[in-house]
Amino acid sequence: MSSPSFRPPSGFDLPRYAGVPTFMRLPYVPLDDPRLAEVQVGLIGVPWDSGTTNRPGPRHGPRQLRDMSTMIRAQNGATGVRPFERINCADLGDVSPNPADIQDSMARITTFYDAVREAGVLPLTAGGDHLTSLPVLRALSKPAPLGMIHFDSHTDLFKDYFGGTQYTHGTPFRRAVEEGLLEPKRVVQIGIRGSTYDDEDRDFADAVGIRVIPIEEFHARGPEDVMTEAKEIVGTSPTYISYDIDFVDPAFAPGTGTPEVGGPNSHQALLVARLLEGVNIAGADLVEVSPPFDPSGGTAFLAVSIMFEILCNMALGFSPTSD
Amino acid sequence: MSSPSFRPPSGFDLPRYAGVPTFMRLPYVPLDDPRLAEVQVGLIGVPWDSGTTNRPGPRHGPRQLRDMSTMIRAQNGATGVRPFERINCADLGDVSPNPADIQDSMARITTFYDAVREAGVLPLTAGGDHLTSLPVLRALSKPAPLGMIHFDSHTDLFKDYFGGTQYTHGTPFRRAVEEGLLEPKRVVQIGIRGSTYDDEDRDFADAVGIRVIPIEEFHARGPEDVMTEAKEIVGTSPTYISYDIDFVDPAFAPGTGTPEVGGPNSHQALLVARLLEGVNIAGADLVEVSPPFDPSGGTAFLAVSIMFEILCNMALGFSPTSD
Amino acid sequence: MSSPSFRPPSGFDLPRYAGVPTFMRLPYVPLDDPRLAEVQVGLIGVPWDSGTTNRPGPRHGPRQLRDMSTMIRAQNGATGVRPFERINCADLGDVSPNPADIQDSMARITTFYDAVREAGVLPLTAGGDHLTSLPVLRALSKPAPLGMIHFDSHTDLFKDYFGGTQYTHGTPFRRAVEEGLLEPKRVVQIGIRGSTYDDEDRDFADAVGIRVIPIEEFHARGPEDVMTEAKEIVGTSPTYISYDIDFVDPAFAPGTGTPEVGGPNSHQALLVARLLEGVNIAGADLVEVSPPFDPSGGTAFLAVSIMFEILCNMALGFSPTSD
Amino acid sequence: MSSPSFRPPSGFDLPRYAGVPTFMRLPYVPLDDPRLAEVQVGLIGVPWDSGTTNRPGPRHGPRQLRDMSTMIRAQNGATGVRPFERINCADLGDVSPNPADIQDSMARITTFYDAVREAGVLPLTAGGDHLTSLPVLRALSKPAPLGMIHFDSHTDLFKDYFGGTQYTHGTPFRRAVEEGLLEPKRVVQIGIRGSTYDDEDRDFADAVGIRVIPIEEFHARGPEDVMTEAKEIVGTSPTYISYDIDFVDPAFAPGTGTPEVGGPNSHQALLVARLLEGVNIAGADLVEVSPPFDPSGGTAFLAVSIMFEILCNMALGFSPTSD
Amino acid sequence: MSSPSFRPPSGFDLPRYAGVPTFMRLPYVPLDDPRLAEVQVGLIGVPWDSGTTNRPGPRHGPRQLRDMSTMIRAQNGATGVRPFERINCADLGDVSPNPADIQDSMARITTFYDAVREAGVLPLTAGGDHLTSLPVLRALSKPAPLGMIHFDSHTDLFKDYFGGTQYTHGTPFRRAVEEGLLEPKRVVQIGIRGSTYDDEDRDFADAVGIRVIPIEEFHARGPEDVMTEAKEIVGTSPTYISYDIDFVDPAFAPGTGTPEVGGPNSHQALLVARLLEGVNIAGADLVEVSPPFDPSGGTAFLAVSIMFEILCNMALGFSPTSD
Amino acid sequence: MSSPSFRPPSGFDLPRYAGVPTFMRLPYVPLDDPRLAEVQVGLIGVPWDSGTTNRPGPRHGPRQLRDMSTMIRAQNGATGVRPFERINCADLGDVSPNPADIQDSMARITTFYDAVREAGVLPLTAGGDHLTSLPVLRALSKPAPLGMIHFDSHTDLFKDYFGGTQYTHGTPFRRAVEEGLLEPKRVVQIGIRGSTYDDEDRDFADAVGIRVIPIEEFHARGPEDVMTEAKEIVGTSPTYISYDIDFVDPAFAPGTGTPEVGGPNSHQALLVARLLEGVNIAGADLVEVSPPFDPSGGTAFLAVSIMFEILCNMALGFSPTSD
Repeated sequence: MSSPSFRPPSGFDLPRYAGVPTFMRLPYVPLDDPRLAEVQVGLIGVPWDSGTTNRPGPRHGPRQLRDMSTMIRAQNGATGVRPFERINCADLGDVSPNPADIQDSMARITTFYDAVREAGVLPLTAGGDHLTSLPVLRALSKPAPLGMIHFDSHTDLFKDYFGGTQYTHGTPFRRAVEEGLLEPKRVVQIGIRGSTYDDEDRDFADAVGIRVIPIEEFHARGPEDVMTEAKEIVGTSPTYISYDIDFVDPAFAPGTGTPEVGGPNSHQALLVARLLEGVNIAGADLVEVSPPFDPSGGTAFLAVSIMFEILCNMALGFSPTSD
Repeated sequence: MSSPSFRPPSGFDLPRYAGVPTFMRLPYVPLDDPRLAEVQVGLIGVPWDSGTTNRPGPRHGPRQLRDMSTMIRAQNGATGVRPFERINCADLGDVSPNPADIQDSMARITTFYDAVREAGVLPLTAGGDHLTSLPVLRALSKPAPLGMIHFDSHTDLFKDYFGGTQYTHGTPFRRAVEEGLLEPKRVVQIGIRGSTYDDEDRDFADAVGIRVIPIEEFHARGPEDVMTEAKEIVGTSPTYISYDIDFVDPAFAPGTGTPEVGGPNSHQALLVARLLEGVNIAGADLVEVSPPFDPSGGTAFLAVSIMFEILCNMALGFSPTSD
Repeated sequence: MSSPSFRPPSGFDLPRYAGVPTFMRLPYVPLDDPRLAEVQVGLIGVPWDSGTTNRPGPRHGPRQLRDMSTMIRAQNGATGVRPFERINCADLGDVSPNPADIQDSMARITTFYDAVREAGVLPLTAGGDHLTSLPVLRALSKPAPLGMIHFDSHTDLFKDYFGGTQYTHGTPFRRAVEEGLLEPKRVVQIGIRGSTYDDEDRDFADAVGIRVIPIEEFHARGPEDVMTEAKEIVGTSPTYISYDIDFVDPAFAPGTGTPEVGGPNSHQALLVARLLEGVNIAGADLVEVSPPFDPSGGTAFLAVSIMFEILCNMALGFSPTSD
Repeated sequence: MSSPSFRPPSGFDLPRYAGVPTFMRLPYVPLDDPRLAEVQVGLIGVPWDSGTTNRPGPRHGPRQLRDMSTMIRAQNGATGVRPFERINCADLGDVSPNPADIQDSMARITTFYDAVREAGVLPLTAGGDHLTSLPVLRALSKPAPLGMIHFDSHTDLFKDYFGGTQYTHGTPFRRAVEEGLLEPKRVVQIGIRGSTYDDEDRDFADAVGIRVIPIEEFHARGPEDVMTEAKEIVGTSPTYISYDIDFVDPAFAPGTGTPEVGGPNSHQALLVARLLEGVNIAGADLVEVSPPFDPSGGTAFLAVSIMFEILCNMALGFSPTSD
Repeated sequence: MSSPSFRPPSGFDLPRYAGVPTFMRLPYVPLDDPRLAEVQVGLIGVPWDSGTTNRPGPRHGPRQLRDMSTMIRAQNGATGVRPFERINCADLGDVSPNPADIQDSMARITTFYDAVREAGVLPLTAGGDHLTSLPVLRALSKPAPLGMIHFDSHTDLFKDYFGGTQYTHGTPFRRAVEEGLLEPKRVVQIGIRGSTYDDEDRDFADAVGIRVIPIEEFHARGPEDVMTEAKEIVGTSPTYISYDIDFVDPAFAPGTGTPEVGGPNSHQALLVARLLEGVNIAGADLVEVSPPFDPSGGTAFLAVSIMFEILCNMALGFSPTSD
Repeated sequence: MSSPSFRPPSGFDLPRYAGVPTFMRLPYVPLDDPRLAEVQVGLIGVPWDSGTTNRPGPRHGPRQLRDMSTMIRAQNGATGVRPFERINCADLGDVSPNPADIQDSMARITTFYDAVREAGVLPLTAGGDHLTSLPVLRALSKPAPLGMIHFDSHTDLFKDYFGGTQYTHGTPFRRAVEEGLLEPKRVVQIGIRGSTYDDEDRDFADAVGIRVIPIEEFHARGPEDVMTEAKEIVGTSPTYISYDIDFVDPAFAPGTGTPEVGGPNSHQALLVARLLEGVNIAGADLVEVSPPFDPSGGTAFLAVSIMFEILCNMALGFSPTSD
């Protein structure tokens, strides 16, 4: 059971629009705060979009996600899980990126996540564009390469852009495989769709053994069947969850820079996260929320609702004795 | 058959963006107008949101709903019903609330609806937040307690807020049951979902016999099956219809203050209203449309499309001899 | 195989937000450009909405569609078709309408499309309101009357408006049948819904043999089954494709002037266009995108994604020897 | 003094967002209502923009202006005038235009204003695009040609568009002079600015004796000095006031289709209307408010604030004995 | 000189869009934090709008103001003052209101400010609607009645609304005078304008000796002259500053519920706050920022820029020995 | 006199919303087009914002500026200049940046402008963020260091950011001075304001002889007096014009990433550009228009209106014999 000091105030006591907005109204525990030792899951913002090749904006994601996350209540309505009572969760603040230097930013992110990992905290990240996942994986894969369940409309497996540029939001998992951060045979990508440049990314996936489930297959089989396969692929070893909000159809999640039409609806978007139950989650991210393309906050609210589903499953992963 | 003076002008004659916007372009018949005696269904605005514990705005609902309602034509495209020819419908105007005094506002609303009921007019209400239903039910239940089919993502059955506050948009049906306005065993709530505070509302529902159909069950069974059960629950006695627009997924209805993702789409949202055919409707409301969260009017257009489906069913309830 | 000079730059070389925005980044080939002789499919804008009886805006459609179309890549992700490599495609620019004279505008449009047809170019039109289809059909039907697959929430078969006005965006196909531009028995209309004025349009459809598939039937049967029937109706003779964006549910396509709720989602919206494979397409249009009602460009992006599906099928219609 | 039945409800009694929105909450008195005989100033909507050569939208103007006009209170804060107590004012509804036929629409407008004039009612018009002024002037000038004070960033004196089209929102006053509706030597145009096609309009103004005051002169002299000259130009004979909202700088009035930067601020925009005191106003219009370009309603609120200033001066023009 | 622990991070180190958003990036020091004893000026949010009689929204003000306040840097560019180095400033969090009970909310606010006052902290409040000032004044005036410089377009001196309702955002200063919280002869109201209900508020001001400077006088005399008079009126005794954002013209501050056109520009809006130098400020508020009416944050950014000017003057009021 | 083939179509012939949008409807002449030899002034887009330390978006600037620029007509209304008839102007397209590599992007920009300079074309640039000016100046200053008139709210003279990062949109002119691209004693910066980090930038300006005119001085002296001094400072030698849209008050130009309130209005914004007459303009840019922060296009329209004023002055700089 969690420590009372790590439980968010209820909307019955403090209206949900009130108060300094931390993630899900959790206490703010920066890395130098002694309470870090008590934290089991840390929510972290990475306000960064220097890898974006198209329309930027995800650097503003963490702030809008914090704002909308104060709408989340204590209990999962579908499963009854009350994560903030099971484990100690906290808002660890934002990694401070350098918006004008990609390499410096990646180093700062990896350093931050090294500290999180060393503190024994499982990270749940709010991006940031998808390049964010690469420096996070560099830290989290240090014990061993990870499996990954990846929700997205793009594979993000491209070799390079603009005549050789290696680090963009379209390349993180190519780099991660090359660097040995991921076990490709324990990687599954779900929801891939849209017009494409060519087949270079898919050929790479095939070559290294990554399983790609395009959206047509997703629509034909349904979320339950797809997730059953996904969980078989990753097995029981530590697995990273990477959820690009552009997995969801842009009618439900317009606030993103590279939307692709024809995607899942919000019910399916939640359900695939809920069906992660039982996965050995080593860390997770929700990326590519771009507030300038949805000032209403609707995209961010869907995103934090998905994060809450993931968090519930992370909380379930802690054995009762750890409560 | 209706009196010609109660039929809206066609968009073939007066473009739909033209004219003073009354509900569905119906004649404006305030309570002191002698034509009230001829009215069979009255559309009423309750521009009020003092019960809102989260993000306000529904006080602006009736105006935007009137605006968008001029897009509604004379005939139901799916069923062929032409309600304005079957019965006399009118816009009865707005109840004038007191935005700075909840008790005064509730008294004003009940007084207005008492007059409507006494005039033999069936009310179709455009809210307003969901607390609106309570003072309306106080008037309409005077002959006898009512059954209710309630579409919503929340039960609105909570005991109190903020340390004892009894009257908010999260409590109307708790109060209505306590006050004997509703027969709980003839009440069904459809679409409940989202993160929750706790189980206090659901425990109350169970204790008094209210049937709650959560969204997961709705998605699994489909609208037709759910509505068949709902109609069995309410039976043939007078029944109130309360439709909170946040029943619908926020991609389809973003203009509301407390959205919950994962809900029905617009086709399902219309269909459940269409499937009310045969219910003995004693009154209906459509609440929680909040224009500041959807200035485009898309939410309001969906809401008036739903209201039109309800109105068609109210019109069908009048025997041919009353035509 | 296409000429290299007709292939768009890749987003790997020129970021997709860069460059003068032509349709799908194709070369701009006005009618007086000698390269017109090499063009096989021409994308044409008709920035015109003088036929709009409700909320105007489609005159701004071509510009926003060009803007968002630079997000389209070279390959169809679902089918693998690479249209710009199969055939020579070009942006032929906009027809210059006269916004204050409907008859003059229609004459200008027909003249433009006469020239396109005479040059042997298949047109893919970006409207404009739906009256656009009439002057286009006047040009394209000169060899012989055409069949038509028509996606819409309205039949656009009305006799007249405002006491006798013949030319509006609600009448083009009534006029087209009367003028002998279409073979009514080879016309199918899919997705019809919403409140209606009366049955005058549907009675006309029945009388002349147009098949109308309302949305309830579409939802019940599914896109595949409906499209199989549609292709049987039009057969192998030349067929026009007219796609009104209000066919799609307004949550997915809010940027239009006369939305009707309860429509298909974006997956279905794409799928019906993809299933046109094998139709003998004599020309196609995508109309009623109204940027003032969706400044975000989301509607336009869906529309160009649909246009890309249609274009792929137009490209497949060219025999390999023409490549 | 006005009849009590013509006085709007106070915001102290009915909140300003409540009630069916008529202009300034005045009673709705259509032309066939016997109370028309008591009306002294009638507010009229002309929801029409078929003359627009650029970005349409003013057909939606009257509805948004009615909506925002319920924010206007009973008394002019600067002058103390209480117009609704001095004279009987009413909302006469909208002229019903034919959006697909310019000539038919102009005939309908002139017919409506003939009836208004014959009823002895002074009209204050909410447009509509600026072509609206022409059919209004055709009615109002029947007793004698009028003078005009015209606030605008454009002269609207052009000969024709698109190779001979005579009736657009850029030509109304050319036509009005040609048709003898205006006395050009009693016409003054204030605020002209922006990039221009050529000098054809200004040459015409010079030739017929219209006084044009460009914005540079306005900024140099100030509103008071300019208005003193304007009032000398029109003298004491009947004068029409035509106020195009694009007179005001687009930061203050973004909701218009052909803005020109560098204009007056809102204080000056109000002041020039207030300084009309003493002009013999035969009618007035406020045109070119285009809600799609300012859904917030800010432009409309400025516009109704200007209309209120004009209305106060119209009310002052009635002798006390008429009260 | 301030303690280093109270200095915000620079945008040179942490990008301004990064980090949990507290007011001006100051440390968060809730009332039960022992560091409160070191705080000299406390920024406090009051997320409350239950007194709003028109369009609500200011309950969301504190959150948007915190968000935009992270754009404020360390030094006043015009005066060179560096407030965060002169004194210890902190974000004291939000008062938790009860959105469904006005009296309870007022009690909670007064209790909070009593604690602030007792801790020796000067409060700078971010509202909330203007009724907020009343419970704040109840706490701050306990030592002695205060003078007030009040920037607004409305006097907020009305007797009551809706037939006797005493507590609304249009009545706080009537109540404050009646309750002896303010010395009316040391009160000045600047910027009053717009259409008015009647003269009841102004008659009260005259009767008790409040000086009202309408906007016409402000525009004629200029900010410097007006502020010189204002400072003479309040003298050297403790004075409250109340700044309603609707003082500013709505082109500069559209995000408010009851705008009045014709107001000051942003340069003047800043300047009057800067000219408060030398006033003995006992507390200050900035109220009526309503994010739903300006999601862009532009209004909030102007508001926090004004708050920064006020804060600089509060900092200057501390003697060097206190540094 | 210009060649007819370089003259834009008139809005009298082609409505302004029609056609592929090039800058000011000029012919598109990429660098490899032989017509480049005839061009005298080239409009160039630099869709790039990798130097942005705060809120990104200017990479989308050129496209929105092209869109809105089709509203510009042929003649300057204030001065009568018809630039497109005096000289040959063209749209040279966009520099293709590498959004994920700052150094590569800067090299690409300098290469492009080297070619422009070598072709004898004067460039008028549409940014992009303000770092754009640095690689442009590297090309244009090759013959000799330039003077500069710089309109902005920030000096952009900072040493570095984030612990040593040299190239951001806050440092271009520090680098330009260090690299010898500018003659600091011939540089003037106008409009500087807002909260500041510290005095490091201003100390540098003082040290090297750059004249800084803060906004308070601008407001006190007026545009004419300030511009007279500015022209004296730069003299008759070649001078670069750099116009950051955040020079203008954000009420007039909200579409920018780092606004500062209290700036000039649109009349003044135009006037300072008009008063550049006589300056020996070696090139000019208009930067920091960020469409995501003003989707309405109002900021872009102001920006292109300013660019037109600059262009008129560039055209006046060509001797009649060159016509």
